[in-house]
Amino acid sequence: MSGSSSTEGDCLGWAARDPSGLLSPYNFARRRVGADDVSLSITHCGVCYADVVWTRNLHADSKYPLVPGHEIVGVVKEVGSNVAGFKPGDHVGVGTYVNSCRDCEYCRNGEEVYCLKGSVLTFNGIDHDGTVTKGGYSTYIVVHHRYCFRIPKDYPLALAAPLLCAGITVYSPMMRHKMNQPGKSLGVIGLGGLGHMAVKFGKAFGLKVTVFSTSVSKKEEALSVLGADDFVVSSDEEQMKALTNSLDFIVDTASGDHPFDPCMSLLKTAGVFVLVGFPSEVKLSPASLILGMRTISGSVTGGTRVAQEMLDFCAAHKIYPKIELVPIQYANEALERLIRRDVKYRFVIDIENSLK
Amino acid sequence: MSGSSSTEGDCLGWAARDPSGLLSPYNFARRRVGADDVSLSITHCGVCYADVVWTRNLHADSKYPLVPGHEIVGVVKEVGSNVAGFKPGDHVGVGTYVNSCRDCEYCRNGEEVYCLKGSVLTFNGIDHDGTVTKGGYSTYIVVHHRYCFRIPKDYPLALAAPLLCAGITVYSPMMRHKMNQPGKSLGVIGLGGLGHMAVKFGKAFGLKVTVFSTSVSKKEEALSVLGADDFVVSSDEEQMKALTNSLDFIVDTASGDHPFDPCMSLLKTAGVFVLVGFPSEVKLSPASLILGMRTISGSVTGGTRVAQEMLDFCAAHKIYPKIELVPIQYANEALERLIRRDVKYRFVIDIENSLK
Repeated sequence: MSGSSSTEGDCLGWAARDPSGLLSPYNFARRRVGADDVSLSITHCGVCYADVVWTRNLHADSKYPLVPGHEIVGVVKEVGSNVAGFKPGDHVGVGTYVNSCRDCEYCRNGEEVYCLKGSVLTFNGIDHDGTVTKGGYSTYIVVHHRYCFRIPKDYPLALAAPLLCAGITVYSPMMRHKMNQPGKSLGVIGLGGLGHMAVKFGKAFGLKVTVFSTSVSKKEEALSVLGADDFVVSSDEEQMKALTNSLDFIVDTASGDHPFDPCMSLLKTAGVFVLVGFPSEVKLSPASLILGMRTISGSVTGGTRVAQEMLDFCAAHKIYPKIELVPIQYANEALERLIRRDVKYRFVIDIENSLK
Repeated sequence: MSGSSSTEGDCLGWAARDPSGLLSPYNFARRRVGADDVSLSITHCGVCYADVVWTRNLHADSKYPLVPGHEIVGVVKEVGSNVAGFKPGDHVGVGTYVNSCRDCEYCRNGEEVYCLKGSVLTFNGIDHDGTVTKGGYSTYIVVHHRYCFRIPKDYPLALAAPLLCAGITVYSPMMRHKMNQPGKSLGVIGLGGLGHMAVKFGKAFGLKVTVFSTSVSKKEEALSVLGADDFVVSSDEEQMKALTNSLDFIVDTASGDHPFDPCMSLLKTAGVFVLVGFPSEVKLSPASLILGMRTISGSVTGGTRVAQEMLDFCAAHKIYPKIELVPIQYANEALERLIRRDVKYRFVIDIENSLK
């Protein structure tokens, strides 16, 4: 644990050092608070599958030591001289990106995640000053205020963490494809961190929500705890056939591979299928699209405008993720369990009480 | 040619008798004109790839003798007592379907092609009275007035034929996905019957149109005759790369298989790819959809509402397909040439002057 004895910086994080992905304490420096920056003491950080991907170099572009975490919440401790929107003590969040060009058509429209020059990811990204970004498995972070979101005071900080990636990833396409029309029907494929949020948003929007899962073990909780209207085991061909042409929308949060045609056939004419999971490929019959003028669309998190809207919506409608709160010392096991999909429904690391 | 000597009906058509697909003269009966029907003398019928598919039993559901043709135009000769919208002498068209339930949400909305009980195809379909429908390679047809379109008097009948399938197939999704925004950019993949209409609609909508084709031989005509702004040979990786993230929309009319990912990468963020060709499968990387929140959507012809709108739009904007007019005696060769893609850009059979 050579990193933990480093004296080069005052930020304490947990970092992976190599593709084993094993995390251990690591001290490093953050930049000084600039005129446009906010510095926040991190209280909680959600555990996302992206943390597995990059700690283990699954995309072959990991830069070690690597501090993961992009579902960051905390309390403002200092702001730069140009920052009017935040003050010390405010509850804030940081999501999957911490910089962008701020000048292209997407940035100007609050859709920084689609910045034409590429948004800078919250960890393992290369920031405009050339440094490699480090994420929220750490005691504090300094970010340009534009990439910092207000978390309403009465919203529990621990529960806000998963909203910054899992929440926005499903909320953004649901709004873009007008899924907030009461009375319409929504299918949610997969019931993990993203899927359970899609169910909650769907119910808040007044939709009839059907959950599709490979495992019948999630039925009871989907119906009674999350409030879904129906539950279908996706391998049950009879149940699937009975629902042909019945859904207005589907949000597919499954990251594993599964056949697309049976899912597309669940949609009504002109139905919309939104892909937010990341299977190895998307393969379907053209008939699945053409004969019912159906649409399949992808999405990845969302810009600052919709992210703030989502946080405010969750506070106003008392929408809370279901989390398992763990100390930083549990991070390695949490990632292992995440790989096994053994979590209901999101791990959140209790940074403020365990990372010292 | 036993069919030609039949006395069972007064309608003369050309029919395929078996999966060889060879067409020959065939006499058959049409129903009497009912109270809601229009009977029209067919003057012209366009030749669509669907004619190849079903004369040759490529979908294994052909019912012989089979009279193809679903791009039908002609002159009204008789109307039923309930028909107020048409009178003898009117120029009219019939497209790819001739019946539907008229009661479901799609029918009520003028989207009969998506009828919940299934629209009845113009040929090789089973109509509500149990008869097998017969298409436009014939002297006349009787249809319920709802599935009959007005063709403006100054629009040449021969040129109207391809609008009834090729035209509506591209116009309908172009309108649905809001491609009629002047200044936006459109890519058209494939330059056949559908593709050349997409170029013409694109220019009429004020779009910047780039044609993508496997064959450089179409360049000159695409630019100078059809008015496209740019032409790219899709196998030229450098040309393709230079256009990354440059298009708002793509209409893919290619029926052959081709890789989708390089095409999707041409789209800007939130760009829309519409599939109207019929490849054997649609296979792409999830990244092509997710990272730029791109959409791929399918479409097949259109309902009666948008079909009439399209015909009126073509007349108002003097949009004319480019056709090769052929006699019915050339039908077999036309289908052979269509398979070889040797047509610019649509065969139209001169029924009134050759089928007697």
